[in-house]
This record gives sequence, C-alpha cells and structure tokens, in this order.
Amino acid sequence: MKIEVKKNILATNAAMAAKNRERLQKNEVRMINLMASPGAGKTSVIMKAIEGTRERLNLAVIEGDIASEIDSLAIEAMDIPAIQINTGGSCHLTAAMVAAALDHLDLAALDAIVIENVGNLVCPAEFDLGESARLMIASVAEGDDKPYKYPMIFREVNAILVNKIDLLPYCDFDLPRFRQVVGTLNPEAPVIELSCRDGYGAEELCRWLEMTASAGRVDLTS
Amino acid sequence: MKIEVKKNILATNAAMAAKNRERLQKNEVRMINLMASPGAGKTSVIMKAIEGTRERLNLAVIEGDIASEIDSLAIEAMDIPAIQINTGGSCHLTAAMVAAALDHLDLAALDAIVIENVGNLVCPAEFDLGESARLMIASVAEGDDKPYKYPMIFREVNAILVNKIDLLPYCDFDLPRFRQVVGTLNPEAPVIELSCRDGYGAEELCRWLEMTASAGRVDLTS
Repeated sequence: MKIEVKKNILATNAAMAAKNRERLQKNEVRMINLMASPGAGKTSVIMKAIEGTRERLNLAVIEGDIASEIDSLAIEAMDIPAIQINTGGSCHLTAAMVAAALDHLDLAALDAIVIENVGNLVCPAEFDLGESARLMIASVAEGDDKPYKYPMIFREVNAILVNKIDLLPYCDFDLPRFRQVVGTLNPEAPVIELSCRDGYGAEELCRWLEMTASAGRVDLTS
Repeated sequence: MKIEVKKNILATNAAMAAKNRERLQKNEVRMINLMASPGAGKTSVIMKAIEGTRERLNLAVIEGDIASEIDSLAIEAMDIPAIQINTGGSCHLTAAMVAAALDHLDLAALDAIVIENVGNLVCPAEFDLGESARLMIASVAEGDDKPYKYPMIFREVNAILVNKIDLLPYCDFDLPRFRQVVGTLNPEAPVIELSCRDGYGAEELCRWLEMTASAGRVDLTS
C-alpha cells in the first residue's frame, strides 16, 4: 500500500518531468540537476561555474531549499536570473516545482539552467526533474565512505565533483579509495577535484559545464 | 490528498513511537536520536561517547543507513551491541524500524540506546522514534548558514554538537553568528563544540549523555 503511494507519486512526477524536458528541448536549453549533502558547497560551485563561463554561456539558476532565500540572493547579486523554490518541509525538488520555476524564466534567452536541489543525498536522486544531466558534489570533509552509504546517487549522476579538496591535509579522506569505489559504481562519470576556496579545478568544472550545455541531450528518460 | 497520505503516515508512526517509549520506560532505558547531514561525524561522535562513558553507562547503538553495515561493524568492534537497519531507499528511520531493532537488544541490561539516524537534515526531524532526547551535529565544514536552511531540526533537538571544530581555521564558519542564530531558534539547547579528531569537547559531550541517560525522561510526546 505504501509502495503504491510512492509509485503513483513517482509516475506523476515522471510525466511532469517529460513535459519539462520537451519544453526545454524546444528552446534548446540544457538543464543540470546539482545534488549534494547540506553544506557540500553547491552554491559556491554554481558561483564558480558562473564566473568561469559567463562570457560563453547564458545561465539561469533554480534554487531549492526547505526555507530561506540566501542562495538565490547570492546568485542574483552576480546578475544571473535566479528563482528560489522553498519546499516547506519537502526534502527534494519535484518536476512540478521546477515547472513553476520555468514559467518565470526567459527560456529563449538561455543556454543552460542549473538547479540546486535540496541538500540531501537520498530522495533527490529518485525524482526526475526533466534535466539533461545530473551532477553531484561530495565534500572531502564528509569522508570517503559516502559511496557505500548512498550508492544510488553515485550511480545516477553524469559527473562527480570532489569539493573542498583544500581540506585534504586536515581530513581522513582517502582519495584513491574514493575514486576506486566511485569507478566501480559509475565508471562513465568523470570525477573532478575542486576547491571553491582557491579555484583549483574550476577550469575543469567549467569545461564540463560548457560541454554539457552544448552537447547533444543526454537521454535520461529510459 | 498528498497531505492526507503524509498525515496518515505520521499518525501511524506516532502510535508506534508511543509503544517504543512505553517499552523503554518499563526497562528504564533512555533512547537518544542522533541526527546530522551525511559525513558530519555521527559514527565518530558515538565512538567518542562510548569511550568516555563505558565505565559508567551500558550503551547500545542502532545504526540507520540506506545501505552498508560499515558503521555497526565499527561499533561492534568496540564490544558494544549494535543493530544495523538498512532502510533501502528511505531517507529516515521510522518508529516501526526501531521497534524491530529493539527486539534484538537486551533492554534490561542497558542504560541508554543511541540511534544514528540516516544522514539527512530534513525528514528525520519529522519522525518520532520513541526517543527521550534528540541530539544533532552540525559540522564546521558545512558552513554556518545551516540553521537558516533547516530550521526545523535545529528547533526540535535537545542539544547541538558543532563537530570538526579543528577545521575552523580552514573554513568560513562564523561561530558567534552560528551560536546567535541557533540561540534564537532554540534557546534551551546547549551548543557543544567538539573535535572527534583531537578529543576537544568530548568530556562535555559525555557529561551531557550521562545526564540525559540518568535524568528524568524528557517528554517529547506533546
């Protein structure tokens, strides 16, 4: 019974995600769903990506949070269109929430939209938003065992950022071990080492974003 | 309609939580629900608490994770009873899952049970497990803005640990600002600074745990 409820919710969501995808395709806009734990550095990563690509890409950002609009204000201060979604109590964005946000964006003027999902490694991975690519952040401070505990999200993304790489000397994070486990779960996804503090890896992040924004759509509907 | 579904789930959970609470009360066992983001240091905190209290408290641990039994194996290696719950896809523990775990513990021999909830700042705060106290960890590496974004969990806990305090020199974490915001949301909860790496604050954590384990039950049913 409970499983039925969830199945219905996911089916309704998938239908709405397909509509979002069609709408974006018509406008030739790519959408990237960025997922991570609370405090892994999602907003900082988006700000680095904006800095590094703003001369070549027209970006917009959809910010998902339980509460507050701190993040969208930070993005707007960079002269980038930003739509804040406050989910109330919900621990993930849904395709319907994103559809409402798309209504407020001038899609014809955009190359790509980055969605900052709610900080959570579990449910966001289950809800298709109509995105063309999925990106996740693992922070060095979280430890190298996250792929064991949250395997689904590591399997379902198109690229993995290892953020706060500047904290490596102060944390017990075994980078080769992490790369090995991630490589087993998801051999296709590039693993990009990054520090938003000192800019290490930002160029590689921006290259990935530009490639994703200009490449043929990655089909995630199957 | 969706809200009804959730209401029913929460009502069923509350009934089961009340049963857990009654069962624990009969055995004079306190139960502490420990919540945090992925990688904030929940298992390390529990290990510090075991080390510091093992001569005075008989503890057991219930480990909640989406997948893997890494954490319960680490606790068992310390000769402490540990029950692993793998939730499959679920982003939080429920009172029914905890009830099943309690069946495997010798309650008469215990003073307190620490539950490590699934790494998530959202849904765990909504599900009463029958605990007598709630403890949360905020990690310095996550940034000082978490109370704005996840206010519910900060409001509902009995104590807040600021873990990885050794990373303060390397992170943009404004401790006075954090304390001020937390103090507004939850003036009753002590804020304990902690480093599981060098042991700073471990004594204060253990004092809190011993007080909680021996004090009259905190009534969270209202």
